Amino acid sequence: MTESAPRYPTSLGTSDADTITLLGQDLAADLMGKVSFGELALWLVTQRRPTPGQVAVFEAVLVALADHGFTPTAIAARLTYLSAPDSLQGALAAGLLGGGSRFLGVTEDCGVYLHDVLQRHQAAGGALPADDDGWDALALAAVRQTKAEKRFVPGLGHPVHKVRDPRTPVLIDIAEAEGLRGPHLRLFEAIGRVHEQVLGRRLPLNGAGVCGAALADLGLPVELLRGFALLARAAGLLGQLAEEQRRPIGMDVYLTVDRNAVYVEPDQTS
Amino acid sequence: MTESAPRYPTSLGTSDADTITLLGQDLAADLMGKVSFGELALWLVTQRRPTPGQVAVFEAVLVALADHGFTPTAIAARLTYLSAPDSLQGALAAGLLGGGSRFLGVTEDCGVYLHDVLQRHQAAGGALPADDDGWDALALAAVRQTKAEKRFVPGLGHPVHKVRDPRTPVLIDIAEAEGLRGPHLRLFEAIGRVHEQVLGRRLPLNGAGVCGAALADLGLPVELLRGFALLARAAGLLGQLAEEQRRPIGMDVYLTVDRNAVYVEPDQTS
Amino acid sequence: MTESAPRYPTSLGTSDADTITLLGQDLAADLMGKVSFGELALWLVTQRRPTPGQVAVFEAVLVALADHGFTPTAIAARLTYLSAPDSLQGALAAGLLGGGSRFLGVTEDCGVYLHDVLQRHQAAGGALPADDDGWDALALAAVRQTKAEKRFVPGLGHPVHKVRDPRTPVLIDIAEAEGLRGPHLRLFEAIGRVHEQVLGRRLPLNGAGVCGAALADLGLPVELLRGFALLARAAGLLGQLAEEQRRPIGMDVYLTVDRNAVYVEPDQTS
Amino acid sequence: MTESAPRYPTSLGTSDADTITLLGQDLAADLMGKVSFGELALWLVTQRRPTPGQVAVFEAVLVALADHGFTPTAIAARLTYLSAPDSLQGALAAGLLGGGSRFLGVTEDCGVYLHDVLQRHQAAGGALPADDDGWDALALAAVRQTKAEKRFVPGLGHPVHKVRDPRTPVLIDIAEAEGLRGPHLRLFEAIGRVHEQVLGRRLPLNGAGVCGAALADLGLPVELLRGFALLARAAGLLGQLAEEQRRPIGMDVYLTVDRNAVYVEPDQTS
Repeated sequence: MTESAPRYPTSLGTSDADTITLLGQDLAADLMGKVSFGELALWLVTQRRPTPGQVAVFEAVLVALADHGFTPTAIAARLTYLSAPDSLQGALAAGLLGGGSRFLGVTEDCGVYLHDVLQRHQAAGGALPADDDGWDALALAAVRQTKAEKRFVPGLGHPVHKVRDPRTPVLIDIAEAEGLRGPHLRLFEAIGRVHEQVLGRRLPLNGAGVCGAALADLGLPVELLRGFALLARAAGLLGQLAEEQRRPIGMDVYLTVDRNAVYVEPDQTS
Repeated sequence: MTESAPRYPTSLGTSDADTITLLGQDLAADLMGKVSFGELALWLVTQRRPTPGQVAVFEAVLVALADHGFTPTAIAARLTYLSAPDSLQGALAAGLLGGGSRFLGVTEDCGVYLHDVLQRHQAAGGALPADDDGWDALALAAVRQTKAEKRFVPGLGHPVHKVRDPRTPVLIDIAEAEGLRGPHLRLFEAIGRVHEQVLGRRLPLNGAGVCGAALADLGLPVELLRGFALLARAAGLLGQLAEEQRRPIGMDVYLTVDRNAVYVEPDQTS
Repeated sequence: MTESAPRYPTSLGTSDADTITLLGQDLAADLMGKVSFGELALWLVTQRRPTPGQVAVFEAVLVALADHGFTPTAIAARLTYLSAPDSLQGALAAGLLGGGSRFLGVTEDCGVYLHDVLQRHQAAGGALPADDDGWDALALAAVRQTKAEKRFVPGLGHPVHKVRDPRTPVLIDIAEAEGLRGPHLRLFEAIGRVHEQVLGRRLPLNGAGVCGAALADLGLPVELLRGFALLARAAGLLGQLAEEQRRPIGMDVYLTVDRNAVYVEPDQTS
Repeated sequence: MTESAPRYPTSLGTSDADTITLLGQDLAADLMGKVSFGELALWLVTQRRPTPGQVAVFEAVLVALADHGFTPTAIAARLTYLSAPDSLQGALAAGLLGGGSRFLGVTEDCGVYLHDVLQRHQAAGGALPADDDGWDALALAAVRQTKAEKRFVPGLGHPVHKVRDPRTPVLIDIAEAEGLRGPHLRLFEAIGRVHEQVLGRRLPLNGAGVCGAALADLGLPVELLRGFALLARAAGLLGQLAEEQRRPIGMDVYLTVDRNAVYVEPDQTS
């Protein structure tokens, strides 16, 4: 005798002979041709139908994060495709595996950081500020504490956009237009105004960070923000791989490294 | 002396201090808030701005393919998340790695199959049929040849939707409404009408197959069709992982297998 | 003009027309048939030729960690193979991606934990204990502090081996025989003797933990201990995939989940 | 009521409170310290205890294939580690995902090729040749047919070792010494002698190819040969990642590509 299996609950997809149900909707009748892919992606994660404003901000974030040119992850995906062109899924997966703490983590880190500041403020009985002065005070305290802990404020600074990241004001405007410029964005903007007092130099609010703030203002769980950056990046990586098919650079990258390799004797002392 | 590096061309992303350019557009001014994520994904692959009709068909395909409930890939992603909850990218990648020939390959296989039939027909000097009778004749010849080669016609049949896959007529209608019901879809529909004469039983045109036909009618390179199925699935997998965070099943799946494992002595004869 | 590429140093592999050099050795003349795969793996990571005793302990650790039956990662690898049998590397990679903090992390966590206790003790001017009483005192202080920080002591307890993990005494004996029962193992053993005083119940020292201690006593960098667990697991996963080819269970796992799925309406309140 | 779960058979690992059984052996008492990691890896795949001679050839193959310097997969693993240093398993998996048809596939392709030639020969009633003349005749027919089919003979030629791959004679000698120089190796050697007559130029038998032949002579299933190349590569990738921790090149690779990128306007004609 075997044990009976437990039940496995889900609210995502199910189907019977004639119907496919997804999120409680009839996939063919109610979703295909009726909702955009971006809307569905958001709905799949929250399991609540997003408002048109939420969809607008969400799609703008995905568009902002989709591709950044020859990032390490894009190069890794192209090199993997060079080695194993029979497995497109492997090249895509290799690219996504670089979506960790360093090059793709700012969106998540910034959302988490802002979320934590707001939670601690509210847990201590503080009300959300009513005006820019209030936000500036909250931001100043947060940046001071972060510096005292010898940590970095995520979302500040960019290696290329040293003065201003062009994505930042555009995304704030979109959120404002949709009525979704909430506490995370306001706190992030305040950090942009006050950090120079603490850090001694003026850094731009970067695009990945503002995306994290905007996603957090949509009410998305902060532990999934990295997932949205990964979804956006999946589209960018497909673009990279399509370009690699048409006009490859992977072999040149490999040969550049190979030809400029220098062999250094390993340390034989033991 | 080192060799100088070659140049690495790209038409995707680039940036300078003030501007981010993507696909020749100003990302912040021209794309964010102006194009949907689905539109951008299509544009990234083709490097040509899609028409609104192409976007509509493309987004409907992504919506159709995003999630299919507890597929093997969804279960693999959830089990990986159970084992390594610190690496969301790893769980997503593990799920995508199942996007190969068997459970996620029908979209690509069907697009490639239809494409090959059309190419051979045209290479042999044949014009595209002008009416259903013409398509039926072409489909009949193709199905006969495929059967003679002891191969399967991709896109026919479904384990659950034994009579009719609800996605199929809806996607054909969307393509028709957008003026994009082209030769791949018409050939696929004709296969749906004539295969019973050859195979001796009536099978539905499945949803994954009709998606492949519709994507091929958008002029997309057939060797990238698997990539679009993977992009759609990335959204579905994020939904699965978000649900796994809220209401996990991974541990129950593991325990079900573990508790019902039967140890069989390995064959010791050698 | 392009910039010249930098040089890329390495002490691993290089080759010219007649010779392949690896780790400063002639691969064909000095390594093939002369060193075991385990020895080479250890050498590749440390870049120093290991002693026979180090190899003996290292190979015993890899053998201990290679396979643990139907773990979540083994099941994930089999499900991925079911979905994409054309890509063995994808199924193997999917299995390894579960090698994170939870099911495969104990080896690393335990090594890091012991390493930190020893480092703090020595940084505070403490000498390494000379006898069991001294180790017990150090262990007691460490377990007390860990409990006070509301953290767990890694390497204690096992879901199946509730009294004694059979790998633990065997690995300690092997290390002792090779003269490599060093401070990490001695501290771990002391934790095994004293933790009951602090935690109120007696737990076994588990096999993954003792492997971490033994690897740390080989002088391996603790941030790479996870890597050795992954290497061992790679062999186990190949065994799982070979068995899946011969006597598959992936489809049954999938069908068990699918058939026992219960659809729960998503929460529509918003 | 749920359906009862099926049983899941395995001959790999199982355990109870006091014992861990692997491959029918007591892991702690019979395997740890008694078998090398290489021996266990081979045993896990075949589920039959290998002979010492089989182990010797197998370990030599793994040593031969472990690392090849800055291959595309090694670079991809290092770039992934640069992007996501928190997930060693992700960097390792990314490197293995390049283990596909092109850079790591020769071992499998060569084994499969030789296996097919031998199978067709025997299926046609042919006995295995008794001397070099017989092997040369069989090899000549095979190379001719392969050329006629406009395909390549796998295992011939090498971009660096243009005259002679140093691994090839060494591995043949090891197999000979162990009494395991079987039909696959003999056929491969014969191809080395006769191909010039058909192809018009003399190419070396490469090391990846001879490894495939040697593994096939161990009686391993040819569809798993890629798996052994992946296992060997896992050790090499760990070495690459350990070196990347100590003396990184990933950032320099990324910057070389980034700084030498050239933006090409996408084709706007549509």
